[in-house]
Amino acid sequence: MKWPSHGSNPQYLYEAMGMMLPENYLDFSANINPLGPPEALKKSWNEIYKKVTVYPDPYALALKGKLSKKEQIPIDSLLVGNGGAELITLLARMLEGKKVLLIQPTFSEYEQACRVNRCEIMTYQLEAPDFELSLERIRPKLRDADAMFFCNPNNPTGIRYLKSDILMLLEECEKNDCLFILDEAFYDFLLDYQSYIPYIKRFSNLIIIRSMTKMFAIPGIRLGYLVGHPEMIANLQSIQSHWSINAIALAAGELCMDEKAFIKQTQNLIANERNKLFTYYRQQEFTISASEVNFYLLKDPYLKDQFSLFEFLLKKGVIPRHTFNFPGLEGKWLRFAIRSSQENQQLMEVLKEWRKLHR
Amino acid sequence: MKWPSHGSNPQYLYEAMGMMLPENYLDFSANINPLGPPEALKKSWNEIYKKVTVYPDPYALALKGKLSKKEQIPIDSLLVGNGGAELITLLARMLEGKKVLLIQPTFSEYEQACRVNRCEIMTYQLEAPDFELSLERIRPKLRDADAMFFCNPNNPTGIRYLKSDILMLLEECEKNDCLFILDEAFYDFLLDYQSYIPYIKRFSNLIIIRSMTKMFAIPGIRLGYLVGHPEMIANLQSIQSHWSINAIALAAGELCMDEKAFIKQTQNLIANERNKLFTYYRQQEFTISASEVNFYLLKDPYLKDQFSLFEFLLKKGVIPRHTFNFPGLEGKWLRFAIRSSQENQQLMEVLKEWRKLHR
Repeated sequence: MKWPSHGSNPQYLYEAMGMMLPENYLDFSANINPLGPPEALKKSWNEIYKKVTVYPDPYALALKGKLSKKEQIPIDSLLVGNGGAELITLLARMLEGKKVLLIQPTFSEYEQACRVNRCEIMTYQLEAPDFELSLERIRPKLRDADAMFFCNPNNPTGIRYLKSDILMLLEECEKNDCLFILDEAFYDFLLDYQSYIPYIKRFSNLIIIRSMTKMFAIPGIRLGYLVGHPEMIANLQSIQSHWSINAIALAAGELCMDEKAFIKQTQNLIANERNKLFTYYRQQEFTISASEVNFYLLKDPYLKDQFSLFEFLLKKGVIPRHTFNFPGLEGKWLRFAIRSSQENQQLMEVLKEWRKLHR
Repeated sequence: MKWPSHGSNPQYLYEAMGMMLPENYLDFSANINPLGPPEALKKSWNEIYKKVTVYPDPYALALKGKLSKKEQIPIDSLLVGNGGAELITLLARMLEGKKVLLIQPTFSEYEQACRVNRCEIMTYQLEAPDFELSLERIRPKLRDADAMFFCNPNNPTGIRYLKSDILMLLEECEKNDCLFILDEAFYDFLLDYQSYIPYIKRFSNLIIIRSMTKMFAIPGIRLGYLVGHPEMIANLQSIQSHWSINAIALAAGELCMDEKAFIKQTQNLIANERNKLFTYYRQQEFTISASEVNFYLLKDPYLKDQFSLFEFLLKKGVIPRHTFNFPGLEGKWLRFAIRSSQENQQLMEVLKEWRKLHR
């Protein structure tokens, strides 16, 4: 069976399963803010239409100006991308043929992009159910690596790693002349995030990737940015295609930069829903990953693999993200996004039904 | 002086000139349909908003289906791109380190993308004012080339080359195991275009690039496609970043596929305006390129270079495209898009003013 490489676009998942996509379904496979985009985007949508007919600013200066101010970082340390995926593609291109360390399980695009660029891939396997990081076990691998990708909080587990551990890894990478690529696609769902951006000045081997599509629920228009040493930024920009970031994304990104209250509201909603879900899962004897963000891994510990549960859910029109392409998970878990209170309630009810039938 | 590499975004041009961008200006520097996007796009704009919150279909199947039907070509011969520029970037990446022949002057992105990928660049210079193609002079260069880019109708001259010449070039390329990359970004502005797509089946060395941003006036959202041999398409897709084409562009592209009457209306408008402009330019003793599309080169033959005319126009808020970065033109011409009847009239009046002062 050929599994889709990502969540969303559930038609491909149902096709792989030989099933029909139901007319009504609940999609938990994409980790997008359940509130949808900030109101300001909808209000400005007709105004934004005007942007359609003009080439986007290829230097994204207005958005970079806002990012620069918010993150207290010079403009030449910033690169805006056509979604985080483009930034990963550009990094992998820059790393062509090099040795890259991946922490598994993690976002599959790192490996995909590195393989296309003939990188030599080394892996460090996080072990379920805790997915703990052992610096002792990573350290020897860093001696050979030219770069490592580190997703924090990690996708698909939702686990956030200790700042002290990350800083130690960063220092270890510096000693070994190894790039440390920190993907913070979901950082803004954390309640008490401490930024790594100030370390950019101190560590020229640090690169931070941010996505704006998850928090602001704008995956359809693609927007992300990267923070790093100006020389690296210039290098990456030279291989990026011209006008890569569309004008709608730029306009939306500028609007979203003013949405502090929206972010706070989202963080609280997600934390409340996560608590409710996790309490329920423990009662119902489902195993979950120690997520601190808007998605989590779940499994029924009474099953060897989760295929029957997966199929049961899909038949009910409840769509989790399969984990067949996450090394170390290989279908033994399912990933769910945290959606609205009502949708999470529906999910709990379907899982209750399952639990009644299977214990 | 550092000139902007492209038209549009006139703030960068005025900055390079040390001038202030006037509040009201007429931008002739971008070759976009003066009618704006088809009405259907504006009408659907609120409906399209829903696409913002969902990941775009990474396989663009709905749009490819329509293209496949219109162009009578299998779906696996099609690649959709984040604008023509991304498709050129992908091709140049595929041609890394190879020998590439460029016909100059032409769209500057071919050279830019090839240089970044350390291609060896060979050039064939078209000579002003006719920019005629000599197959005899190109032929020897093809012996060494791994690929050639050919823009037809050519940007910045607007000249369309003979089908018989293009087919001879294509055959010559085939004999020499050389890719023939035909960029048809402006093909749909021609009144009597004959498609080269049927030759895709016969020539596995033929690649055709199309843009949807010019005819449909949607450069802000980025959309183009490429037609070629399925093996090549698969190769290019593997290096394209995931979700590269945003969902707004996909939706707009699908709508635009139904806009036959709009295309016809545009072609007629452009042809009428071009006739009017060209008649006037001949009367006023300006030299122009033999364009058959929606832009043209112009120069005042009484000037050695065109800098004083360029400056005069910018001061009046009339913005041509500079030609400093087109080899063989180097500022000795100016490029103008054909805009609405009213805007073209304003341009003619400003040029009349110039002519009164300079003969």
